[in-house]
Amino acid sequence: MTDRTIMIDIGKDLFGANEEAAAHNAELFRQSGIRAIDIMGSVGTGKTQLIEALCEKLRDKYRILMVAGDLATTIDADRVASHGVDTVQINTGTACHLDARMIQVALKDIELSQYQLIFIENVGNLICPAGYSLGVDKKIVVVSVTEGPYMVKKHPLTIKRADMVVINKIDLADAIGFDMGALETDVREVDAKIPVYRVSSKTGEGIDTLVEALDF
Amino acid sequence: MTDRTIMIDIGKDLFGANEEAAAHNAELFRQSGIRAIDIMGSVGTGKTQLIEALCEKLRDKYRILMVAGDLATTIDADRVASHGVDTVQINTGTACHLDARMIQVALKDIELSQYQLIFIENVGNLICPAGYSLGVDKKIVVVSVTEGPYMVKKHPLTIKRADMVVINKIDLADAIGFDMGALETDVREVDAKIPVYRVSSKTGEGIDTLVEALDF
Repeated sequence: MTDRTIMIDIGKDLFGANEEAAAHNAELFRQSGIRAIDIMGSVGTGKTQLIEALCEKLRDKYRILMVAGDLATTIDADRVASHGVDTVQINTGTACHLDARMIQVALKDIELSQYQLIFIENVGNLICPAGYSLGVDKKIVVVSVTEGPYMVKKHPLTIKRADMVVINKIDLADAIGFDMGALETDVREVDAKIPVYRVSSKTGEGIDTLVEALDF
Repeated sequence: MTDRTIMIDIGKDLFGANEEAAAHNAELFRQSGIRAIDIMGSVGTGKTQLIEALCEKLRDKYRILMVAGDLATTIDADRVASHGVDTVQINTGTACHLDARMIQVALKDIELSQYQLIFIENVGNLICPAGYSLGVDKKIVVVSVTEGPYMVKKHPLTIKRADMVVINKIDLADAIGFDMGALETDVREVDAKIPVYRVSSKTGEGIDTLVEALDF
């Protein structure tokens, strides 16, 4: 079981207040000396496994909090908690994304100054999370070689709103016959400058390079 | 290039009118003697490839129209059109699902009586499309062995609102080490009676059984 579960009543959300709440979160993170990372991507791209791999590399250096967004379960938070990392679960019910106020509510009773790093795993979907700022330092979009060849072409706005693209599950690329070069070309057509990293969160390939790139 | 592209201005959508538009569509399909199938699923689960496989089996028996929902591209409609099937593209911009009024707008200049079967490929995301009736006869949710083990556990509402589950890409199950029995158990826990079919749209395995189950 994870540390806590917050049930969000989306009926209470007021459209338009998100940017204000995001600015509030950003200020809170700044004051608390925290770097916050929003990890977006479709279901099954390995967002949780990537966070687990990053926590394994970083947990001796930083105290980490993981905030997990999910419609209905605590599966992801439980997995990360098993690495000795504190977690907060946000169950969104039917909402397809996290927003800044959900983060605000989830963090309000937590003594943030004890943490230096927050990983926020967004709800698994490549569309909606991109539209909502959370107040983080960096938005990473995780795509996987298992998602077919069109996930970048079909989601240009998500790429444009991200700071970094991580191509995950590269250990499966050969078995699936996936062309990673073509995917990187698609990313370049949307955003010529966004950094792209290839990793396997399962085997650990590329994780050290990613940690270095994130300047941890 | 696909037959036509409809740009949807989601700013004009009025919340709550969907059920009414869905009833209108259902009546239109009934009067025109059409069976309409809504195909939902996350990006990269092979919804388009499944429709292509079904069209190959059925295009000599029925005149088919495919309606493709996508944020930004005509990739899916173009693929299906290459099988000699008429297509209509709905580009939703940032909207994460099709709704009944988008279908209404997309079909309004089409002589429907010439068709007997409509496949609607919903926007690639396992959450939002489930919340919007389109007025179809059947909602199929496509999951893929490439999506990791939790896509059913995490999306119980999507399963509950569907009429059938298709597990796609079974040809990759061994390479990925995917447990299809466990996935079917997850489906059964959400809905004890929903039919589940295992297919590979790529190799054709299971497609004949699915066609028979759909009573085409």
